[in-house]
Amino acid sequence: MANPVLPSSGVLSPLGLDAVRLSPGFWGDRMALNHEVTIAHCQEWEEREGWIGNFRGERPRRGREFSDSEIYKLLEAMAWAGHPGLTPLAETVAKAQEGDGYLNTRWSGSRYTDFEWGHELYCYGHLIQAGVARLRMHGEDVLTQVAVKAADHVCRRFMEGTETCGHPVVEMALVELYRVTGTERYLEMARRFVERRGLPALADIPFGRAYYQDDLPVRQAQVFRGHAVRALYLASGVVDVAVETGDEELLKAVESQWERTVARRTHLTGGMGSRHADESYGEDYELPPDRAYNETCASIASIMLAHRLLLATGDVRYADLTERTLYNMLATGVALDGRSFFYANPLQVRVPAVPLDGVNHAAEGGLRSPWFDVSCCPNNIARTLASLPAYVAAATGDGILIHHFTPSQLRHQGLAVRVETGYPWTGSVSVRVLADGEGRIGLRVPAWATDATLAHVPVSSPDAPLPDGPVIRPVSPGYAHVDGPWRAGDEIRLELPMRPRWTFPDRRIDALRSTAAVERGPLVYCAESVAEEPPLGAVTARVEPPVEREVDGVVVLEVPASIGAEPDGGWPYASVEADREDGTDATLRLVPYHRWGNRGPATMRVWIPI
Amino acid sequence: MANPVLPSSGVLSPLGLDAVRLSPGFWGDRMALNHEVTIAHCQEWEEREGWIGNFRGERPRRGREFSDSEIYKLLEAMAWAGHPGLTPLAETVAKAQEGDGYLNTRWSGSRYTDFEWGHELYCYGHLIQAGVARLRMHGEDVLTQVAVKAADHVCRRFMEGTETCGHPVVEMALVELYRVTGTERYLEMARRFVERRGLPALADIPFGRAYYQDDLPVRQAQVFRGHAVRALYLASGVVDVAVETGDEELLKAVESQWERTVARRTHLTGGMGSRHADESYGEDYELPPDRAYNETCASIASIMLAHRLLLATGDVRYADLTERTLYNMLATGVALDGRSFFYANPLQVRVPAVPLDGVNHAAEGGLRSPWFDVSCCPNNIARTLASLPAYVAAATGDGILIHHFTPSQLRHQGLAVRVETGYPWTGSVSVRVLADGEGRIGLRVPAWATDATLAHVPVSSPDAPLPDGPVIRPVSPGYAHVDGPWRAGDEIRLELPMRPRWTFPDRRIDALRSTAAVERGPLVYCAESVAEEPPLGAVTARVEPPVEREVDGVVVLEVPASIGAEPDGGWPYASVEADREDGTDATLRLVPYHRWGNRGPATMRVWIPI
Repeated sequence: MANPVLPSSGVLSPLGLDAVRLSPGFWGDRMALNHEVTIAHCQEWEEREGWIGNFRGERPRRGREFSDSEIYKLLEAMAWAGHPGLTPLAETVAKAQEGDGYLNTRWSGSRYTDFEWGHELYCYGHLIQAGVARLRMHGEDVLTQVAVKAADHVCRRFMEGTETCGHPVVEMALVELYRVTGTERYLEMARRFVERRGLPALADIPFGRAYYQDDLPVRQAQVFRGHAVRALYLASGVVDVAVETGDEELLKAVESQWERTVARRTHLTGGMGSRHADESYGEDYELPPDRAYNETCASIASIMLAHRLLLATGDVRYADLTERTLYNMLATGVALDGRSFFYANPLQVRVPAVPLDGVNHAAEGGLRSPWFDVSCCPNNIARTLASLPAYVAAATGDGILIHHFTPSQLRHQGLAVRVETGYPWTGSVSVRVLADGEGRIGLRVPAWATDATLAHVPVSSPDAPLPDGPVIRPVSPGYAHVDGPWRAGDEIRLELPMRPRWTFPDRRIDALRSTAAVERGPLVYCAESVAEEPPLGAVTARVEPPVEREVDGVVVLEVPASIGAEPDGGWPYASVEADREDGTDATLRLVPYHRWGNRGPATMRVWIPI
Repeated sequence: MANPVLPSSGVLSPLGLDAVRLSPGFWGDRMALNHEVTIAHCQEWEEREGWIGNFRGERPRRGREFSDSEIYKLLEAMAWAGHPGLTPLAETVAKAQEGDGYLNTRWSGSRYTDFEWGHELYCYGHLIQAGVARLRMHGEDVLTQVAVKAADHVCRRFMEGTETCGHPVVEMALVELYRVTGTERYLEMARRFVERRGLPALADIPFGRAYYQDDLPVRQAQVFRGHAVRALYLASGVVDVAVETGDEELLKAVESQWERTVARRTHLTGGMGSRHADESYGEDYELPPDRAYNETCASIASIMLAHRLLLATGDVRYADLTERTLYNMLATGVALDGRSFFYANPLQVRVPAVPLDGVNHAAEGGLRSPWFDVSCCPNNIARTLASLPAYVAAATGDGILIHHFTPSQLRHQGLAVRVETGYPWTGSVSVRVLADGEGRIGLRVPAWATDATLAHVPVSSPDAPLPDGPVIRPVSPGYAHVDGPWRAGDEIRLELPMRPRWTFPDRRIDALRSTAAVERGPLVYCAESVAEEPPLGAVTARVEPPVEREVDGVVVLEVPASIGAEPDGGWPYASVEADREDGTDATLRLVPYHRWGNRGPATMRVWIPI
């Protein structure tokens, strides 16, 4: 079962890379680009920066204290992709492992002297995740041996005591290693790491203990807080522990934290983590478009968490947020060339970025960059795209649920289907049954699809040359099911309404007052201005139905707008209110947010003053 | 001449602590509290934290790499205040000075190995400023000897070469030492530091060289950028160099940078520096109320710069911004108890701060704290309040200009006057001539005072028992002058209109869209909610004339408002716009921004949705 997450219980069971194959299409193309370009790109940069050399003992050691983890994320990507570079890279890693399983190129010689910032357990977490991927896709080899040896070392060193790591991730890795090996101490170790946190287990720091979720025990928390990637990796591990230990209370705690976080601390794109200073969530309703940090890795962590909650509960809301995050964050994080990335993902950029020729040290939003000083995001994208089929569908007791619509083939027990669709550009999804079989087929109807229809079109039978026409029925957001039995050639047709729609923010989101955004299907749109295009500094849109146009296979939208003057002024606060209507009529072109930044330095805004 | 800034030329000459004495009143009370409470408070904490012990060689050394500078700022405050603690503290400092003048408790033994972050020249800058204050208030002593020896060391070590400090301040200190001693090499050293910057002189860092204004030469910059305190300290030093060397081009460069910064990068309170991550300005129109960093020290630096530009040019705009910054930033930075401080000064706080019993490590806004890990702000407040009389008035060729209205007595050449006023609570300012004399008296009419009046009321003469009534004339923003000669008892009465006024932001300030603020006189007001008071999360105000009430000597304002419901919701983005009128009618009480946070943990907002 080739899955990154394989719970032993839950409402849904995942369908893995052995059950789902993506065909050319929105996601299949990105997965292919990832295999062909991005994985090699990451490896090249990790060599160039010396982070792989660290494992060869090259001195001085280079990179940040957690740079080992980037190689592990890349190894995980290679494992899912069946990439031939894996074995030699894993052998390089293996040589740096010490006799007792300890492995870290930064802290060897001063082991475990800095739990707050050292990232040693964090690095093991990514190593173990790579090992799990390899075990599931291939079986034992040098990488899996290194990972198991490291996990055993962790259990010996940390089973007793009160210590944990400033950056969670080892928790979910250990549970998955338990799931693949059946070795219970890995689960127990993960459980202890979860329960230790917040007692507290770590030192106080200027950011406060909430930064690494050590401010209170996870069972008592009300909302995700602090560093977003840490919060979401921890929550993912907590769900894993809860599911494997049957701890309903623990699961409910995370569910309710998720719910509050989505209601108050999530950007329209699904991005999480508003603040730059500590990469943290910030307060409820602190959702500034311009300074939204929205680290790409946080969105990947959000997908990991929502996937776990979906499997555990079967609640479609988790799949809805995953779709939003996939199309507006993951797809945004990597450029069309597969070689340049966003680290921060603001929803507004006022000043075009200055192009760089190398590492983007600042990792500010607005500049698609080949590499960063901290390059978690490219490697995280690589491992996520390489395992993306595992997120597409899931098995119920009596059939399958298709969560994400992209050209693909799915097999599960007696069912085999092919999904054909131009989604997200069109709303027509065809699910064609490939062989006679049994089982219920469910399709997710996204929350935004308020007037979708479903048709079951039985294949023409030789006995009935004039079959009844398909029955078309309205379906509501949630799941729409069709029961078998099936004959090869039967088809389900889902029609999702793709009218562009205006979206308005909760009044408590101060930074978005008197603005609106446009969405179409799962895509958030934005206005983008490069070079000589009309500036966006004083634009006001009229809330009228956007006009659709297709440009190079992409649906772009146009709305009427007014472009105000931008005078050189003095003091910018006055005793009279500016007239919002005061400006030149213009047509504002909106492009999918995930496409922005591919045409060179630009200004951009998702939320448009109205 | 007891002045922190004493240019040898310029349109205006400052009146120092020997010419201006504050009486009880808004600023006189704060100055007295500073003398009686704040200075001792700072010294106690610097002992407790070990920063003074560093000079005694106590080990391990404690505090940040720049903690020496806090002792120097405190010494400067003591020098202006004539505080008896100065000499023993200066003697402690003196013992740590090395034979060649080098003095730094952190870097002794590894001198000048980190110009980017080492802050050695920055520390000298504050030491020299303390020495200048002492020379002007007292004359030579142990402190001035240490300072001069350090300055001579700096000139020997740095006159040749390309090096400078990551944190400016030594530039203006050296110019002032030149002004007080006449030693030209100090001016030349300052000039070279200014001209070296941006060639570049420092290494690139992840924040970018703009962080410390090393991205381009100061003559080429268009706007203040990067770390706000650094930018403003540098600009102050540049003005000093420009004035002393007669470099008009250099002065014009700073003037135009100031102009653009005020128009695009300044908060309503006068606060500067929007970003937390690097304490920087951010982009044009990036002025978020909730995440406004607005470091107290940046506001002090802004006052220092505007004062220099005012003296050089006589342009009243610099005094207007100074007033705004004094009443809404400096007065806000220290609590009514004189022992607790704001470091960051946001214009909106959504979640009440959690009270702390000691050092505020995070230095986030919203919590008045006794001390910080980086405690520049308390010491900076102390030295500024101790020298505040120097900012009140200035001399022209033929008289005086009174810039700031607070109970005080002023003497200059043949003129002696007493200012009486309840400003900023009332708009009546009386300037009473104390002795027969000559000279023109000018009063600043603030930019917001669009219908002020001025009356010249000659003293009753024994020869004319029924004098003509005073002539009341309208005066426009700028300066209003009355010419002498004067008789003891003559009076000038300025009446400033104190009607509360609504203020609206430039449409390009995205974070303030559809909000307004209320000002009255020089004061910015805010809504504050403690404990059980109505929450501010979904408040909408109606733009009607605020009603004034006096509460304990403070004018508070009331405006009609609607308090919306704050439902626990799901996804906070919807297809319909919330009705802004939907809420419960309420009266919103507004208090002066500088008073907020004195009643315990609170939420607060300056900009109110309308």
